[in-house]
Amino acid sequence: MKKILSVTQFLLNGLRKHENIRCLHTGYISHQKQFVLTKDRYPHIKRGNYTELNDNHVKFFKDLLGSDRVLTDPNDVQPYNTDWIKMVCGTLVCEAGCVLETLDQELEKHNLMMPLDLGAKGSCQIGGNISTNAGGLRFLRYGSLQGNVLGVEVVLANGEVLDCLNVLKKDNTGFHLRHLFIGSEGTLGIVTKAALQCPPRPKSIILAFLGVEDFESVLSTLKLAKEQLSETLSSCELIDAPSLDAVNKYLGIKSPIDEFPFYVLIETSGSDVNHDEEKLNVFLDKAMTRGIVIDGIVTNEPSKMQNIWQLRERIAEALLHTGAVYKYDVSLPVQHFYEIVPLLQNELKDTSATVVTGYGHIGDGNLHVNIAAEEYDQDLVNNVIEPFVFKWVSEKKGSISAEHGIGLKKTEFLHYSKTPEAISLMKKLKNLFDPSGILNPYKVLPLH
Amino acid sequence: MKKILSVTQFLLNGLRKHENIRCLHTGYISHQKQFVLTKDRYPHIKRGNYTELNDNHVKFFKDLLGSDRVLTDPNDVQPYNTDWIKMVCGTLVCEAGCVLETLDQELEKHNLMMPLDLGAKGSCQIGGNISTNAGGLRFLRYGSLQGNVLGVEVVLANGEVLDCLNVLKKDNTGFHLRHLFIGSEGTLGIVTKAALQCPPRPKSIILAFLGVEDFESVLSTLKLAKEQLSETLSSCELIDAPSLDAVNKYLGIKSPIDEFPFYVLIETSGSDVNHDEEKLNVFLDKAMTRGIVIDGIVTNEPSKMQNIWQLRERIAEALLHTGAVYKYDVSLPVQHFYEIVPLLQNELKDTSATVVTGYGHIGDGNLHVNIAAEEYDQDLVNNVIEPFVFKWVSEKKGSISAEHGIGLKKTEFLHYSKTPEAISLMKKLKNLFDPSGILNPYKVLPLH
Repeated sequence: MKKILSVTQFLLNGLRKHENIRCLHTGYISHQKQFVLTKDRYPHIKRGNYTELNDNHVKFFKDLLGSDRVLTDPNDVQPYNTDWIKMVCGTLVCEAGCVLETLDQELEKHNLMMPLDLGAKGSCQIGGNISTNAGGLRFLRYGSLQGNVLGVEVVLANGEVLDCLNVLKKDNTGFHLRHLFIGSEGTLGIVTKAALQCPPRPKSIILAFLGVEDFESVLSTLKLAKEQLSETLSSCELIDAPSLDAVNKYLGIKSPIDEFPFYVLIETSGSDVNHDEEKLNVFLDKAMTRGIVIDGIVTNEPSKMQNIWQLRERIAEALLHTGAVYKYDVSLPVQHFYEIVPLLQNELKDTSATVVTGYGHIGDGNLHVNIAAEEYDQDLVNNVIEPFVFKWVSEKKGSISAEHGIGLKKTEFLHYSKTPEAISLMKKLKNLFDPSGILNPYKVLPLH
Repeated sequence: MKKILSVTQFLLNGLRKHENIRCLHTGYISHQKQFVLTKDRYPHIKRGNYTELNDNHVKFFKDLLGSDRVLTDPNDVQPYNTDWIKMVCGTLVCEAGCVLETLDQELEKHNLMMPLDLGAKGSCQIGGNISTNAGGLRFLRYGSLQGNVLGVEVVLANGEVLDCLNVLKKDNTGFHLRHLFIGSEGTLGIVTKAALQCPPRPKSIILAFLGVEDFESVLSTLKLAKEQLSETLSSCELIDAPSLDAVNKYLGIKSPIDEFPFYVLIETSGSDVNHDEEKLNVFLDKAMTRGIVIDGIVTNEPSKMQNIWQLRERIAEALLHTGAVYKYDVSLPVQHFYEIVPLLQNELKDTSATVVTGYGHIGDGNLHVNIAAEEYDQDLVNNVIEPFVFKWVSEKKGSISAEHGIGLKKTEFLHYSKTPEAISLMKKLKNLFDPSGILNPYKVLPLH
């Protein structure tokens, strides 16, 4: 009984939290802001042999655990969070329910930082970040969670607790099991604890917001930034004009520079402000002399930096004011990075779509394509947008999901980014880890 | 036929190469320097249901492929190497047989570098590096292969070619299969191609070689280096006095400073030599003012840096001159890092062991313990050294193999670093990927 309990207990407290993360991550966000159950959001899903949670289940657990140990009220469940275990030499060990921003604030006391940062940091939890292999704004500098997660504790489908909570930077004893749970979206096991390596917190952060005339100059800016800023470069983000317009128009946030077709946001993080400034000045001097960058501002004042970051981080939120937004998140070879945006603008010009924007982590080859419309139109999605986007990305050898995962809605498109042999092996792994298919059903793998 | 061919062809050309890597990596190195087959080196291994390669097999492949397409002469096989495929935006794609140093030299033309470096770079191949999840001298800065390998092509046990040769930095479509092949020592599949992300090559490298009075000061040096050198720190290595003595005595390489109980080698890599020098000077000034570091030299002259690196890289080679060396490679929490060396010196004082030394990657918590003796003594290994080392490391929650892997000789000790649930899951994975057990048999997993 104890073993099964471990899973179920977590499911009761944990599933809603996971759901909560997913709605920030997956597919298109509609204009609903309230928490909506999967069964309500996707009423047409063909349900397999799973029961629905009913009062008898809740009663069973209340009888077993005592009613004060089972949380059911959404207000109780949502902010439910767990606490620290320990932290030694740049290694953080925590429970899966810790909020990313809380972890980062705790690490600040030790002059350390989390190796990932994303717009949803105030609400997303590290267990969800790991299960979805979250990327984010500083991937360019600190790399992937596959590189930064040292260990995990996982509850398997059979109720067994798998302790791979290694805290050592190097451990080559046997297969590296933890990586199977990073990015498999809870379908192979449920992450309950994690150990991460955390870099030193930078003493100096400087932000530059630059106006650029064409996409070729964007690429030249990125190349020059890598060369000149090198070990201090911590972010390189692209914003196109329609994205910035939306943030201006719907959220009233002003750009600090004149209008350009493209804007590049460059952040440096280092240990010596004078050195970092000098490197940035050399970079800007070269970029402007060569005519790559036309205008720009540079600041290290926290409030000004926060304003500039909002121009990038709140694009998706701004576009929601138009009504509905179809969101895609793709990786592309950098030379093809922006091509898809004008192609889509042309493809959708006589449809209900009002704006097509492109922005994202150009330093990592990861583009967010957002299509805004007054109303959600499922036919447009199914017959026009998705066939076009996925086919085009696949032809350019990109990834149809760079950081947002597969979830429920992209399972049938997995073949655009993975070979039949790879999908077959994934299915065998799923069957090995979860033969009854009870872990996050309908997700990641296509049914057939 | 074609599918099976793909595996076998690789085995014929590849196994010796792989063997070649393993003898640089695994277990103890005896004083044999010639290439020795596993069957000769370990004559007492109980062989399973595998045939030995005989002339009929070679004839079969010569008939099938033509005799000029099957290499059998060791001189032909050993330097056999394959060439480039392509290289775009800091991403390298190559075949598994490429030698690490060759790859690094090629990348130098593009102002890039390999994200790993190790003493064996002149002979080890990237396929072996990936299969063994090699760590090395700059792990501290550039992280693990789990973080740097973007994709692999693998031949599975059933002859299928699994194409996971992703070249994108971000791709969250399905399970992250490639990580199963990184560090599983060829027991789940044979890596035939790989894609890696490669950092910019530093424009400035500076090396400091420091003399330190006690181990507590070594830890203070590491802490201060992380704080002050931060994003420029690329290596922090420890050498103890018996290690340096061996290099002096047997290889005639002189230390550039007076004698100390411990030496710390610190390397910085950056994009601006003036900035890097200034950071290093501030660090050294603080370290010497606080009495942490007593003496030291700093250089950025390539020939002098190479001399200093030899003091660290050639320790294992020097110790071989004593007769036999028992080598252990462990990860330990940094506060326990060196404790095991004096404990072992005491434990072995009335045995045939002549010298016990400790050195290694202190910046990553990875210690190499080498025990030199005039003659190889299997009883001493089985009854004294291994029970002591593995139990002690396990009690301190370390890893019994930080970067050298499990291979043939540590399978029965895997339980010291992995839980029964984890080992059971590994066995299930092995059975799924290789039900007939034909891939690198006897390795990694215990038989029972």
